[in-house]
Formats: sequence, C-alpha cells, structure tokens
Amino acid sequence: MHTPFLLLVALVLLTTFSSSSYAADFCVADLTGQQTPYGYPCKNRANVTAADFVFSGFVSPGNTTNPNKLALTRAFVNHFPALNGLNQAAVRVDMEPDGVVPLHSHPYSSEMVFVVEGNVTMGFISGLDSNILYANKLSKGQVMAIPQGFLHFQHNSGTTKAVLFVSFASSDPGVQFITGALFRNAFPSFLVDKTTGISQAEVQRLKARFGGTE
Amino acid sequence: MHTPFLLLVALVLLTTFSSSSYAADFCVADLTGQQTPYGYPCKNRANVTAADFVFSGFVSPGNTTNPNKLALTRAFVNHFPALNGLNQAAVRVDMEPDGVVPLHSHPYSSEMVFVVEGNVTMGFISGLDSNILYANKLSKGQVMAIPQGFLHFQHNSGTTKAVLFVSFASSDPGVQFITGALFRNAFPSFLVDKTTGISQAEVQRLKARFGGTE
Amino acid sequence: MHTPFLLLVALVLLTTFSSSSYAADFCVADLTGQQTPYGYPCKNRANVTAADFVFSGFVSPGNTTNPNKLALTRAFVNHFPALNGLNQAAVRVDMEPDGVVPLHSHPYSSEMVFVVEGNVTMGFISGLDSNILYANKLSKGQVMAIPQGFLHFQHNSGTTKAVLFVSFASSDPGVQFITGALFRNAFPSFLVDKTTGISQAEVQRLKARFGGTE
Amino acid sequence: MHTPFLLLVALVLLTTFSSSSYAADFCVADLTGQQTPYGYPCKNRANVTAADFVFSGFVSPGNTTNPNKLALTRAFVNHFPALNGLNQAAVRVDMEPDGVVPLHSHPYSSEMVFVVEGNVTMGFISGLDSNILYANKLSKGQVMAIPQGFLHFQHNSGTTKAVLFVSFASSDPGVQFITGALFRNAFPSFLVDKTTGISQAEVQRLKARFGGTE
Amino acid sequence: MHTPFLLLVALVLLTTFSSSSYAADFCVADLTGQQTPYGYPCKNRANVTAADFVFSGFVSPGNTTNPNKLALTRAFVNHFPALNGLNQAAVRVDMEPDGVVPLHSHPYSSEMVFVVEGNVTMGFISGLDSNILYANKLSKGQVMAIPQGFLHFQHNSGTTKAVLFVSFASSDPGVQFITGALFRNAFPSFLVDKTTGISQAEVQRLKARFGGTE
Amino acid sequence: MHTPFLLLVALVLLTTFSSSSYAADFCVADLTGQQTPYGYPCKNRANVTAADFVFSGFVSPGNTTNPNKLALTRAFVNHFPALNGLNQAAVRVDMEPDGVVPLHSHPYSSEMVFVVEGNVTMGFISGLDSNILYANKLSKGQVMAIPQGFLHFQHNSGTTKAVLFVSFASSDPGVQFITGALFRNAFPSFLVDKTTGISQAEVQRLKARFGGTE
Repeated sequence: MHTPFLLLVALVLLTTFSSSSYAADFCVADLTGQQTPYGYPCKNRANVTAADFVFSGFVSPGNTTNPNKLALTRAFVNHFPALNGLNQAAVRVDMEPDGVVPLHSHPYSSEMVFVVEGNVTMGFISGLDSNILYANKLSKGQVMAIPQGFLHFQHNSGTTKAVLFVSFASSDPGVQFITGALFRNAFPSFLVDKTTGISQAEVQRLKARFGGTE
Repeated sequence: MHTPFLLLVALVLLTTFSSSSYAADFCVADLTGQQTPYGYPCKNRANVTAADFVFSGFVSPGNTTNPNKLALTRAFVNHFPALNGLNQAAVRVDMEPDGVVPLHSHPYSSEMVFVVEGNVTMGFISGLDSNILYANKLSKGQVMAIPQGFLHFQHNSGTTKAVLFVSFASSDPGVQFITGALFRNAFPSFLVDKTTGISQAEVQRLKARFGGTE
Repeated sequence: MHTPFLLLVALVLLTTFSSSSYAADFCVADLTGQQTPYGYPCKNRANVTAADFVFSGFVSPGNTTNPNKLALTRAFVNHFPALNGLNQAAVRVDMEPDGVVPLHSHPYSSEMVFVVEGNVTMGFISGLDSNILYANKLSKGQVMAIPQGFLHFQHNSGTTKAVLFVSFASSDPGVQFITGALFRNAFPSFLVDKTTGISQAEVQRLKARFGGTE
Repeated sequence: MHTPFLLLVALVLLTTFSSSSYAADFCVADLTGQQTPYGYPCKNRANVTAADFVFSGFVSPGNTTNPNKLALTRAFVNHFPALNGLNQAAVRVDMEPDGVVPLHSHPYSSEMVFVVEGNVTMGFISGLDSNILYANKLSKGQVMAIPQGFLHFQHNSGTTKAVLFVSFASSDPGVQFITGALFRNAFPSFLVDKTTGISQAEVQRLKARFGGTE
Repeated sequence: MHTPFLLLVALVLLTTFSSSSYAADFCVADLTGQQTPYGYPCKNRANVTAADFVFSGFVSPGNTTNPNKLALTRAFVNHFPALNGLNQAAVRVDMEPDGVVPLHSHPYSSEMVFVVEGNVTMGFISGLDSNILYANKLSKGQVMAIPQGFLHFQHNSGTTKAVLFVSFASSDPGVQFITGALFRNAFPSFLVDKTTGISQAEVQRLKARFGGTE
Repeated sequence: MHTPFLLLVALVLLTTFSSSSYAADFCVADLTGQQTPYGYPCKNRANVTAADFVFSGFVSPGNTTNPNKLALTRAFVNHFPALNGLNQAAVRVDMEPDGVVPLHSHPYSSEMVFVVEGNVTMGFISGLDSNILYANKLSKGQVMAIPQGFLHFQHNSGTTKAVLFVSFASSDPGVQFITGALFRNAFPSFLVDKTTGISQAEVQRLKARFGGTE
C-alpha cells in the first residue's frame, strides 16, 4: 500500500544513510580522470594537503638561450591541479634584452601582465574595422590588461632582463602563436599565402625556420 | 479565409495592444543605450513588434567583386538587435570560385558553418604544442564546427559560387583577421617582423597592399 | 598541383602525427563517458581527427511522409560530438507545403532560424500577462530569432517545399512538444483537463491519435 | 536593554552613515533604470537600507476566489529589487482543495517547491522521445525539484488549503502558461489546431473561456 | 476513480517504460561518480523515477537540544541528487527561542530566507570600507535576501519556536562558520590572534569550547 | 631608428584615429555610468587609448606604518576601468616583517598569490565539517591558490619586507575582513557574542580598538 505515510517512511530512511561530505569547498584536479569542457574530476579530498595549493615552478628563471631570448613557464591546471574550478592560471615570462613573446592569443581568457622587473613594450590589436595597436612601454610594477582572444606580444625593449607574471581568468586559457599556427605544421604554403597574403616564398622560408612542411 | 497576408496584418496589430509585463521574456537591444560587457539595455517592450525578430540582410548575396572574391554579411547584435541576450549571431558568406575568407579568429565564440551551396575547404589550427590543421572539404548540406578563438579559414575550392551560413554562440563574437591585425594599421614593421618572423620587406609589401603604415 | 583530393590526404595524414598537448583547445565528446550537467568527458585527443568536426546528417532531406509533412534532423552533441563545450547545436527542418513543426519549446536555448528555401510562417508566444504571438512569414534567406524556453512553431505557408537551418546556443538545447507532453504519455486525462482546460473528451481523442494512455 | 524594537532602530540608523564603498558587494535594482539581459542597474548604495532586503508580500494568503482556486504571489526582481544579481526569486502559492496551478514552464530557471501546508500532487513532463510524467503527491515539509523549462503543474489533491513556497535560480525566471499561450490571445484558431492537434471547435471554446480571439 | 493511490502507482509504473532519450533534460547526480567543479555525472536515466525528484528530509524538525538551540537540515546535491545541474539547494532551520545560527557565509551562493514560523532577527554585514550590518526582525511569511559570500546570522528573537526555509542558487553552496573556522581546528592560537585581533586567552577559551587545538 | 620613445608617440597617436567599430572587442568601464550586477557600461570607444589598459598604482610600495605593518593597493574595476568584463582584478600587498593581512574572504572570486619578494606564511580554512587550515610558508617566486569565499590570511613570517601580487577571477571580487565585520561597526556586542562565542568583554575591547560601537 502506498499511503503517503509509508512513502514518507521510505524516503526518510533513505536520507539517513547519505555518506560523505556535502560541501565541495574546492576541487583539486585528478589529472588521471577524464577532462570535461569545464574541468577535471576532483581528487579524493582525503588526499588533498596544503601542498596541493602551492606551485613552485616560477621560482627559477627559465632558459632563455633561444632565438626569442625567451622562457615561458606555465601554471595551467595541468601543471597546478589546484586551479581546477578556480578560473585562474598563470605564466612566468623571462626575457633577455630584445627578447620577445611572439604574437599570440588566448582563446579562453583575458590576460593581466605584471612587470616584476625590466622594461617591456607590450600591446594588443583590436578587431575588424579598427585593427588598432594598443601598445605601451611598461616598467617595473606596472600592469597591463589585454582582452580575451586578441593578438598581443611582449618585447623586452629595455637593457636588462625582464620578468613578467601573467594571470588569466581561466584554468586552461589556451594559446595560439602566429608562428606556430602558420609555419610550424603542414598547413599548405599555397593556402597560407591565399588566406594571409604572405607570399609562398616567405611562407616556405618561415616553415623552414620554424619546422613546418608543405 | 486565412491568407498569409491577412494573418500578418492580424499579428502585427496584435502586438500593438500588448499590456506591459514585469517579466523580461526577452531583451531586444536598445542600440541608443550604453553597451555593457554582457549586452545592451532593453528596448521599451511596448515598442517591440514581431518585425524586431526578423533579419533580412541575408536575402541577397553580397558583393564579391574584390580580391578575396568574398562577401561577408553580418548579423551581430548591432545589426540584429533581437539577438541581445540570446547568445547567438550569424554571418552569411558568399564566395566566387577560388574566393577565400582569410585567416581569422573569433575571440568570444565558437563557430558552426553550414554549406548552403558550393564546395568549400575550411579548417582551423589548434593551439601551442600541436599546431595541427584540422581541415575538410565540405559540400552542400555539410556542417563544420570550429572551436572558440582559434585561427580558421574558408576557401571556395569548387567551381561554382559558394554560400555559407555561419552561426555563433555569442551575440557579439568579435573577429580578428591576420591581414588586418598585421598589415592594415600602424603596427611598426620591425615589431611585426620581430613578433612573427615575417621579414620587414614582406611586411612592408603587405602593408602597402592592405593599407597599413610604418 | 594542389588538387582538393591531394589536399585532403595531406590533411588527414597530418592529424596522425599530432603530439599530445596539455591545453584543452577543444573537447570532442566521448559519448561512452558519463554526461555531466555541462557536457561529456573529452575524447582522447590523440584520436581526434579533422573528420570529427564535420557533420553530414543534413545533406539529404529527411522523410516527410507523415501527418505533419515534416522531417527534423538533429545535430545535438549526441549526434555531433564535436559540439561538446562549444555551446552550439543545430536542426535541419524539411516541410512539405502545409507541413508544420508543432508547438514546442527548448528549455536550454534560444533559437535562430535561417530559411534555406520556401516560405514559412513562424512565431513564438511571450510569457504571462502578455501572451503575445510574435509571428512572421519569412521567405528564402530571412532569419528569425526566438527567445529561450518559449513556445513556438513553424508552418510551411507556401506552395513549395521548405528547408530550414536552425541553430541553438547550447550543445544540448532540449525540446518539448505540446502534443508529446500532453497526449503521448500516461498523463491522466482528468489532470490534463484540469491543468489546461482542454476537455477530457478532446484529450482522449488526442491521446488516441498521438499514442497516449489514461 | 536590547529589545528588538531598539535594535531595529539602531540598525536602520546605522545604514544612514555608511561611507561609500568602491566594491559592489550587492546591486539592489534601480527599477527606474533600463534593464539589461542580466539585470537592472544598481540603486545608489547610499540609499540602500536594511529594509531593501526584506519582502513582505508573502505574509498574507492571496485571493483564491477564482476558477483555479489559486493565488500566485510573485517575488521576482521587479517586486523585490534586492534579488538583482542574486540569481534567486520566489513565488507563494495558495490553493483551495482541488485548486490547481495550470500547466506552465519557466524559460530561465529550475524550480524547487516546498510544501508549507497541505497535500499537493505535482509533476513535470520530460522532453521529446520520452514525454514521461514525473509526478508525486507531497505533504507538508516535502520538497520537489523541477528542471528548467519543462511543463509542470501543482494540484491540491488534499482536503485542506495548501501553501507552497517556490524558489527559482534566476531573479527573473519568466513563466508561460499553456492556457495563456494558446487561448488568451489572438493566436489564430486554425494555427493552434494545426500546431497542437486540438480541434478548432475546442480551441474556440477555450478562447471564449480564457479571453482569446480569432 | 483517480485516488492519489492509483495515481501514484500509475506514475511509478510509467517511469519504468521510458525509452532512452538523447537529450539530457535533467542530470540527477550519480553520487558514486567523481564530482567535477560543476557537478556530478548523471545517473543512468533509465533508473530515474519520480521519487528521485522528492526530498523528505525537511518533514520533521531537527534536534535542537544543543547550545545553539538549533537544527540545520541540509538539502544540498549530496543529500538530494536531483539538484545536480539545477543551481538550487535548501536548508531547513529549526530554532528554539533564543536559538541562533552562528555567523557564517556561503562561498558559492546568495541566500533567500523564508520564515515558516516564528520571529527571527537576521542580518548580514557588507564588505570592506562599509562593514554595515543590514539586519531586520522578520515574522511569519517574510523573506530576506542575503548576498553571496558575506557573513550573516539568524537569531530567534521571539518567544516561540522558529522554522526557516532557506534557498540557494547553487546545488553546493558551501558554508563556513566563524566558530568552526577559528576555534574548531588546529589554527594556531597566536595566528588567530594575529589575524583577527582576538586575544590568545580568548581564542584558547573558545578552542576549548568548540573543540579546537593549538 | 625605432627608439622606445618614438614608438610610444606613434602608438598613442594611432589610437586617436580609430574608426568606430560595431564589435565590442572590449568594454572599458565608464565609471560615471550606473553599475549593473555584471559590470559597468562601456566608455565611448572613440575615447579609449592605449593608456586605458595600463595601471601604475603598484609601482611604489604602500605605506606600512600601521599596526598590521601592511599596505594593500587595489586594482579592482573601480581603480582600473579596463578590467570591466575581463574577469580579472589584482592587489599589491606590502608587509614589513611580522606584518599581516588579517583574516578575510572574497565573496566573488578565488585568489592566486605570487610572492614577489620575502617569505610569507599564508593559509585558508575549509568549510563546515572539516574546518581544515591549509597553510604554507612560501618564498620568492612561489604561488598559492585560494578557493573562492573561504577565510584566509597572509603573514610575513620572514625577516625582510615582503611583496605579493594577488590576482582574482572577477573585476570586483569584494572582500570582507573579520575585524571589520565584527568590530568596526554597530553590530551589537551581545549579538556578536551570541553568533560567534566571543565574549562581550572581548568584543567591546576589540570594538574600542577597531572603531566599532555598541
């Protein structure tokens, strides 16, 4: 008999046996789990310690012995699992004088750049019908904001090393470099030419330089 | 008799007598109001009619008499105010054979491309450390999905005109073309070179072509 | 020579050699994984190819030999896994003259309707205290926007076949038809009457027609 | 002595001397401002007092002398401006025995129903391809959850008055009743028939009852 | 005859025969699955019945025999899995006269408090540079809104028992009590002193009372 | 020659000639407009220059001559209008040895702390039923993540000055200090006692210290 009374008894019993914790509080990524569009599954909370919330990869400068005189050290969710669900990520940038972060964009986040040391010229370009370069030369302690998804660069225009701390509003902001997208893959040269105007000869020179083919 | 004509008259009249409602239901943009990061203020609802929800700018092909053999007709919130708050926008693309939508990205939205007619090769390039070109040749009726913020192109690789209907998941997806961002402004040539690898000579050739300076 | 055929071979081969990337870039649905409120787990990226981003289910018209003279072909995330996380979905609609998409709503998305061919009357009804029908007769190339969650219909009010391309701002917009919700289940007739005003006799007539019981 | 009366006086006075703050903290709606898709402009904070955060419209039962034996009292953002930006709203429902909240949906929010008193049968119907009625008879103290955008009803199936407190996850959830959408406007009868299956005769009977035309 | 009994049987049986649906419609939590930042995986829909949408834990008052003369009964997603993805949760509060819900905040949600019975003084404090207490004494049927993340309390300032129904705009709003955060753990007394100003002697007295150490 | 000085002149001039664009691209706050729950109206784009995207308030250390030996310099949207719509904000923290950022929480954002110089102990406390202190001592270059809405502190536990750069995932994260909320206002002492357990004597001592009354 399903009288409201019996039904209620069943339901009340049911709620008595709920196990484990109700509040999530936080969700440190379990990187062995399957990612979803909005983050990783949570690490078993019983195994989370204070150390999970610390990232030490920015302590030492990266290696800038390369043509861009640049080191990029990332703290995205895959490097710093505590960021899962926090909508934050970071990058440390080291640049020798005349070093450069080549033109790139972040599909999923705006960017805030904090100059830890050095003098850095940086800018972004706005969208169609304006194509304005909004660029500034920043010195130690200054901050620049860069809207989501637009092309931008940093250039160490000073005479000393530069260090930047960059923050994002996504735990996995993504990044696309012009050099990589155009010249470091098998994007056919005639198509690069046709879709950017850059001559096939120049494209092939750059593919040779950056590791692309075709 | 319910002829379409009479029906329409009835429907339009109907909207004239709507009582005001407290519930928002929808928020057709008042383009004379100040935009916010998440849309425009709502047009006075008493003045909203059925016609506000219709956009007719895609009825005729655009003018493809230009070097890209391309016409882009936009239905973003500024052209179609009913999209305000609906998280949708659209573009109609017309391309002559060998026409091209140059490499570009949308900072605020993914893209879905529906081939209305023609044969079109289109692709996008993934981000750092992969730089893969995911490209396909589509024919009439096929659809391609393109993730938010990544560079992509369309090329009419067929022998007939092509028409695309493109939808976005934002009422103001934004757009940035490589050609415009690099070559149609005062982005100094030496900085374009330094941040992309493209030689200053090539940059200056392209600036001359696309209308840039410096 | 860059024939389309060779290009495609090149592109497909290309995807085979992608290095694994830590950045998500995109999240093609692994439909064998467990859905969450915001999408499916991501397919192993090493197995994603250009073909994952193409949907071909709209190429041919659906079968309109039915009382509504209607075919609905869906491209939701379950049919087109690349839409996972992209906040987009689509439907192709085919209607014979006098065919109809019965009154329905989408709980999770607005709708944008693009008339590929034909003449279609379509409209939605606003909410409580207004109950206004915002209806329009559209012809080829016109677009109509329909706010999220409100009842709407499409009717082929022309003399030729109609084809619509419908886009959504969710990869799983959901759909509820009045006919199905009221007359194609075991919703007790006396309750349908009591909660809609439709007489029990009419409800039972319609339940018999649409496959409901009680 | 801390009598409640004195306390209240103290608290209200207190708010008069608040210094202005740069942080938003909250955004009580200025209903004289223009609504946006995501809420109203904020009332000048200097004029916000404790009383702004209280809504008293649920204190007394509404008038149930009507065919549905029903009173709905709303606390949406337009009635309770403090809800602006809080993603919450509420309704108080009063029903005489056999009273009913007719079939309706909320385009912008799920619903949680708390039975304050009485015995109420309530249910919602799932979407296409299932059309399942998920219904339950609840008594005092029980809670039912109803997903966003799906049709649902409440029926006082007990022998005493019923009172419900309903909460929403939006400050402006919207609402659409079947009776209003189909029968209380100028939606042409032949189109209602064509898009729902309900006979024109029945539609016209219901239009006469609910105040519709055509 | 449609007695409640028969209706319930019919409804429960009905759910047994649901065909599988591709559209999500809803996502009742599978609590055995791994939580993500935005909810749990969905329970197999074939096993979802009407009973999943009902929570009965609020039917009886909680036990108020404790120093705060307080019972808090939660309906967060872990107790009521149907809330998964619905952005709602609830708490039933029982307080004897002079009972109190100690000062606390909800990191992930605003709060709406509905006074089911009794007279309750409640308030929240705004943020930095204002620190205003917005407090009110509410009686039966009144509602108070409390912004997300700010400290607030409820005090039964009447002479009879009080019952509150509290709703949230998140299925897992989280909660942090001052007493627990400061005095029920191993937060070193000298640090509590240093970061709050409360003397070490007082901190140690309270740690002894609330179960803290150090 | 492209000296940095000349470059800057060129760039600033450039922004003067921007044509108006339909796409939003970005939305620098017009602080004279009315705030909404999701940001300010956009400044007229014609008046936006590169300088709008730079914040210089962090260049010099703040004044730490105060009992907490602390300076907090904020870059929220009200101080740095370019953050409007970017979901980012920042704070510069200066602390003398033994200086402290008192216990506080941010209602609307998680926090990421980058140690620019010094040695700083910092921690947060998790929610109800755990009340765990997750604390770490960080040195130069280390980063700590702190979940949204939970109480946390920073203490300069080293022997030299400390500088922190803190980022948020909201342009207006809000902040509430325990000391301010409990002891710097007219929150009646008996209620503070009743809702926190802190004795009235101690509350009154702290109110005298921090500027509260009652």
